[in-house]
Amino acid sequence: MILLGIDPGSRVTGYGVIDVAAKPRYVASGCIRIEGEDLAQKLARVYAGVSELIGLYRPTEFAIERVFMAKNADSALKLGQARGSAIVCAANHGLPVHEYAARQVKQAITGNGGAEKSQIQHMVMALLSLDAPPPADAADALAIALTHGYARQGLLAVAPKRRGKSSRGGRWRDFRPE
Amino acid sequence: MILLGIDPGSRVTGYGVIDVAAKPRYVASGCIRIEGEDLAQKLARVYAGVSELIGLYRPTEFAIERVFMAKNADSALKLGQARGSAIVCAANHGLPVHEYAARQVKQAITGNGGAEKSQIQHMVMALLSLDAPPPADAADALAIALTHGYARQGLLAVAPKRRGKSSRGGRWRDFRPE
Repeated sequence: MILLGIDPGSRVTGYGVIDVAAKPRYVASGCIRIEGEDLAQKLARVYAGVSELIGLYRPTEFAIERVFMAKNADSALKLGQARGSAIVCAANHGLPVHEYAARQVKQAITGNGGAEKSQIQHMVMALLSLDAPPPADAADALAIALTHGYARQGLLAVAPKRRGKSSRGGRWRDFRPE
Repeated sequence: MILLGIDPGSRVTGYGVIDVAAKPRYVASGCIRIEGEDLAQKLARVYAGVSELIGLYRPTEFAIERVFMAKNADSALKLGQARGSAIVCAANHGLPVHEYAARQVKQAITGNGGAEKSQIQHMVMALLSLDAPPPADAADALAIALTHGYARQGLLAVAPKRRGKSSRGGRWRDFRPE
């Protein structure tokens, strides 16, 4: 089962693709950059980016961070627009959409609902046997995908154990839709 | 030139379609109801609704209310999601997207940037020679489309003059995308 995790932002949208069988396996990650354009172009870029990821990796499920408390109304509106574009793209492609609160993701990945970004990066590296911690946006998106993988396997309440690092390299790249 | 105006909301998205030549002409209006479903379904419904309107009326431009100050972060996020879905649909259909602040719309339609909803409904009825004031959501969407029409004609700073009512009937309907 291929899972696409999305960490939407008004300027950068992180993505992470994993394959979950017995053990989650890293497939891809990166970010869709949407800076410096007008709103409609930005949202179209998020949509096109998610659409291309779906075409490329054929995920069967889609997971996204649920937002409870945004910093302020203005940033909430911007985040909502990017989030709406990503979610409607998944829905238009017939993918089931699952939402996880940031706290739930942190708890599932690090065992601590209040974990720092760096802890998420570290645990994503460990859980997916990567050589280096992924950049924050990609790590968050991979963490969301991993959380959904654990939920699917009925393991959500259990904090995953760290496994030994292998030599499998991470492939961070900037994903830029056409 | 056919203009599609959209007044997005997290529960109801109003729409208004007008034809602007010498005098703006009413084409259609109504609302896309998106209550009682999960988020992805709601956003897909907004997208499908806007998409169907574009297919039906073939607008050449798209206008939407710009949001400056949402009531709170939670409502801003929800509004942003609906707004993002509507805007990305227009952008995906290649329509130029124009944004107008609520104050700008009220000023253009009633000559008063702080006008009440009922004044907007009244002036939309007068300006489009309708028999009755349209419901609030549809009136707001028609007002946004009218504002863009005035902007296109270089008349945005000028508050439109009221014209006499004709017998042309309004056609309010609930637009429900498939």
